[in-house]
Amino acid sequence: MKKDVSQKALALHKKLGGKIRIDGAVPIKNRADLSLVYTPGVAAVSNHLAKHPEEAREYTIKGRTVAIVSDGSAVLGLGDIGPLGALPVMEGKAMLFKQFGGIEAVPIVLDVHTVDEVVMVVKAIAPSFGGINLEDIAAPKCFAIEERLMSELDIPVMHDDQHGTAIVVLAALINALRVVKKRMETVKVVISGAGAAGAAVAKLLHLAGVRDILVLDSKGIIGAHRTDLTQHKRELAGFSNRENVKGGLREALAGADVLVGVSGPGLARADDIRVMAPKAIVFALANPTPEIMPDEAKRGGAYVVGTGRSDFPNQINNSLAFPGIFAGALKNRVSKITDAHKLAAARAIAGLVKNPAPERIVPDMFDTRVARAVAKVIR
Amino acid sequence: MKKDVSQKALALHKKLGGKIRIDGAVPIKNRADLSLVYTPGVAAVSNHLAKHPEEAREYTIKGRTVAIVSDGSAVLGLGDIGPLGALPVMEGKAMLFKQFGGIEAVPIVLDVHTVDEVVMVVKAIAPSFGGINLEDIAAPKCFAIEERLMSELDIPVMHDDQHGTAIVVLAALINALRVVKKRMETVKVVISGAGAAGAAVAKLLHLAGVRDILVLDSKGIIGAHRTDLTQHKRELAGFSNRENVKGGLREALAGADVLVGVSGPGLARADDIRVMAPKAIVFALANPTPEIMPDEAKRGGAYVVGTGRSDFPNQINNSLAFPGIFAGALKNRVSKITDAHKLAAARAIAGLVKNPAPERIVPDMFDTRVARAVAKVIR
Repeated sequence: MKKDVSQKALALHKKLGGKIRIDGAVPIKNRADLSLVYTPGVAAVSNHLAKHPEEAREYTIKGRTVAIVSDGSAVLGLGDIGPLGALPVMEGKAMLFKQFGGIEAVPIVLDVHTVDEVVMVVKAIAPSFGGINLEDIAAPKCFAIEERLMSELDIPVMHDDQHGTAIVVLAALINALRVVKKRMETVKVVISGAGAAGAAVAKLLHLAGVRDILVLDSKGIIGAHRTDLTQHKRELAGFSNRENVKGGLREALAGADVLVGVSGPGLARADDIRVMAPKAIVFALANPTPEIMPDEAKRGGAYVVGTGRSDFPNQINNSLAFPGIFAGALKNRVSKITDAHKLAAARAIAGLVKNPAPERIVPDMFDTRVARAVAKVIR
Repeated sequence: MKKDVSQKALALHKKLGGKIRIDGAVPIKNRADLSLVYTPGVAAVSNHLAKHPEEAREYTIKGRTVAIVSDGSAVLGLGDIGPLGALPVMEGKAMLFKQFGGIEAVPIVLDVHTVDEVVMVVKAIAPSFGGINLEDIAAPKCFAIEERLMSELDIPVMHDDQHGTAIVVLAALINALRVVKKRMETVKVVISGAGAAGAAVAKLLHLAGVRDILVLDSKGIIGAHRTDLTQHKRELAGFSNRENVKGGLREALAGADVLVGVSGPGLARADDIRVMAPKAIVFALANPTPEIMPDEAKRGGAYVVGTGRSDFPNQINNSLAFPGIFAGALKNRVSKITDAHKLAAARAIAGLVKNPAPERIVPDMFDTRVARAVAKVIR
């Protein structure tokens, strides 16, 4: 990232003093207005909801509002920087929820960090919200937190670092495969990174029909041979690396059709890409510095390259997914985001690119059709 | 309340689907905008706050945002109707925070109800907020919750049912005493109600110099003779009822100069008011139905009458206090709302009425000077 952007961002944040504003949905011009939105009129609404809590979404912000919850334990590429460090990111995300999804979002950063505490707090504040977007929570606790909240709450809960990423990667892959004329069922996919994003990408690609998947963590290819695996990595070993390949990135990439980088900068060079199959696809999603820069990947023979950045073609960014996912869930009263929803969302995003080309595999983030198309399939 | 208002309020709430809206502070028109408010630029802000968390108020919504927290255990006059029943009230309050105080407020209704749980949850979500407005939490747990949060958090915490009410009652009393030409130090004040509001009114009037205070709960006058008192009522007995008067409302009102009703409708009739001292002051604050209607109080000889309602003169409403209290605390970086702040706020509100008259003892709720005047003294 250019130093210039950092300095401009700091200056803008200081000038704004917080990036979101909260206003009444109608002005209160006089006592008559006040008597309807506040006492005494509001008592009728409170009374009604005390008797019919199931109608809360119709009469309150619950029907249109998502909480963006983070404990700041895995913020961007910055690691465990705590709730206050996470807050500006969640505010930015709230802006995107409104701008792209047309829904309200409240940044809630937490000063608690264990699975039990986070689950307890999110359940406690859930009545105000129609959905919970978990964000920037470290693996592996993010898995247990999401799983428990999904089973214990009756509103949609989604950890965006996992599923938002996975949905957009799948959307990009659908179109990239159209470009290189290969099939989901026969490609070999290598995923570098077995954290929240890597695990979710692996699972969703598997669900979408990819049979040959290798996932790497910092110690190499994950597989049955590894004795050091945590539970969520054992789960990955259960459906990936069926031939029990051992080794590191170079061994994994031999003959691979797709590399998805969700691990961090400095992963690969042109020489690594050269061992991949012809018409290789490389998604280098680390932000701001990708696992391999697009020109370097192309030098190694990559045919389609995507990054998370806006200054290269093929920006594979969660913003294509989460606003529509939650907008649809709220509108259509969906209480759980299922695997079927994720697949449908990815296909909806991919479907907006009529003629995919090497430099055009995903729609533009500012394309207003995206959130609408995604929301439509979350039902 | 007229049936008409209830029906209109229900219809309006259903039409709006939530009474607050959350928007970005600036539009995101293109990638350059996005790169400043979100990735990659926001990383610089996150990094800065990870190192300098004490600057969070300058760079994030923490500096301008209050959480309105309720567990729905004592909502309006409706009692323990739970978090969803409370939500429309908190939304209305968020509207007032913005309209009168110019600050952002987020309704957070809780699905937990013990002191320990509420304290744990509010502390956990506190990093997002610059202040905590506790609301509609039942006595006596509201006392312990507020006390613990005040001592364990470094942002202002105020239970509005207690202190907002007390501040506005004191403001009204200052001017009512000017009207009837009596002195704080020599009047006898009867407070009907020993819940959150009654206890706080008693304490603040005592602090303001009132020496002769009687507080009544549902069993009669509180005093040393009572063996059934909970801790917070024993505290009231410690500074009120110095002559250990026994009995009910009629005994308490004999010769009293002021009656403050914070208990509920049907408390008193004209005959009860008749035993008070000449030029009696009656504040009947139950909403929507006061402890005694103004015309009935006047029939009993009351000289100055105030209610919580907008359709009678002298509306003694918390909205005169809380927006300015929190706006001032945020602006002036005040971490605790002290007794001195409450006294100063009451005097600031009273001071805006230049020539108090029997039907003009408090400023109008829509008087934009009020919040500014209050905010100025919270420093």
